[in-house]
Amino acid sequence: MAKRMEIVAIEGIPEVKAGDDLAGLIIDACTAEFPLEAGDVLIVSQKVVSKAENRLVHVDPDDPLSHKPLVLAEAKRVLRRRGDLIITETAHGYVCANAGIDRSNVSPDVAALLPVDSDRSARRIRDAITYRTGTQVAVIVADTFGRPWRRGVTDIALGCAGILPILDLRGTADATGRTLHVTEVCIVDELAGAAELVRGKSSGVAVAIIRGVDEAWFGTGSVVEDVVRSYDDDLFR
Amino acid sequence: MAKRMEIVAIEGIPEVKAGDDLAGLIIDACTAEFPLEAGDVLIVSQKVVSKAENRLVHVDPDDPLSHKPLVLAEAKRVLRRRGDLIITETAHGYVCANAGIDRSNVSPDVAALLPVDSDRSARRIRDAITYRTGTQVAVIVADTFGRPWRRGVTDIALGCAGILPILDLRGTADATGRTLHVTEVCIVDELAGAAELVRGKSSGVAVAIIRGVDEAWFGTGSVVEDVVRSYDDDLFR
Repeated sequence: MAKRMEIVAIEGIPEVKAGDDLAGLIIDACTAEFPLEAGDVLIVSQKVVSKAENRLVHVDPDDPLSHKPLVLAEAKRVLRRRGDLIITETAHGYVCANAGIDRSNVSPDVAALLPVDSDRSARRIRDAITYRTGTQVAVIVADTFGRPWRRGVTDIALGCAGILPILDLRGTADATGRTLHVTEVCIVDELAGAAELVRGKSSGVAVAIIRGVDEAWFGTGSVVEDVVRSYDDDLFR
Repeated sequence: MAKRMEIVAIEGIPEVKAGDDLAGLIIDACTAEFPLEAGDVLIVSQKVVSKAENRLVHVDPDDPLSHKPLVLAEAKRVLRRRGDLIITETAHGYVCANAGIDRSNVSPDVAALLPVDSDRSARRIRDAITYRTGTQVAVIVADTFGRPWRRGVTDIALGCAGILPILDLRGTADATGRTLHVTEVCIVDELAGAAELVRGKSSGVAVAIIRGVDEAWFGTGSVVEDVVRSYDDDLFR
């Protein structure tokens, strides 16, 4: 268990455009600001991934609700509606407002859709960074979601590569020697939330590095397969 | 916006007993390991707060379900049941499994209830630390909760003192100058989750310090009042 971690915002990523080499932009910014080390976890905002992958759709800049028809098209299920708020299940299985479509940090005439496959997006970024720099890192693609029961949004993981999404402590012992029965910790969500604390919402900082993660946490897994609950497994849908 | 944060586990807190001076134990451990500085956020596990406040109840050590009657007594509402799993709303308004009662990291013949008022618990620890050391810190009391839609648990804030639970970015501008309309970030939950990454579940590390938090985040507020959604405001109860 790592006893100390550092979270660092990488500020030098320029405005990302469709088709940009996002891994290259990340490598350049990190090299200038905080050179990557083996075992670093990079948290990358969904927004820049969507931009690089050209997941942008034209909307009427004068109509704040012009993206709402897209929401219904992107949603697999609408779980709740109240006024303009639409809580959806996406094709990936994420439950979030507006099918994850949003208009912040993009130009007024477009809305950003979620990446088609955020685990794959994370894997591509990770593979490119590892191949080009020789440094083994993990990558999490993060977005900002609301949640029931508690006010306020937090950042969670949409996709990951090179890190276990869930740390399975079942069968291990607590400090008193008692066997822990049900503790599976979603470390990728905790890491995404920690990165948000330095990235901020309004500052447009697309990447943060978390250094000091336990090396036992590195491995393979998928947010969509390992974190997203299936409809039938869920008590609140 | 802070661009760099550090998360440090404080390992030297001894086993906490009912009536212990928890603030004093924290001060001593921090002084030895990582001396407190103004602006530090201390994340303290619910378990040690419950122990110090004597929120322990006797249960049959040989019956793994002997705390279940307590769950029904502590719960204000039972929201869902499936087998042994009981999803409850507590008197405070938290929604969690088993009314927050658990048996990990306590001796086999007791179960730990949640603190009566975790915001007050956080305030007491904060006031004692500030009074005795002259160092202004913020305190979050954290616990581990599951959530719907996503597998795995994460740490969230039960109570806080000296820090805004929710950072209200409504009306501020994003990186493109567009006004952010709905972004209220629950920073205390993100801080609690970040602390869990170094505290771990099984290691019994009760306290972590997060250093580097933006000083604009310090202020007053309550998790129960500001974060917990009321029953009527919630779309998923």
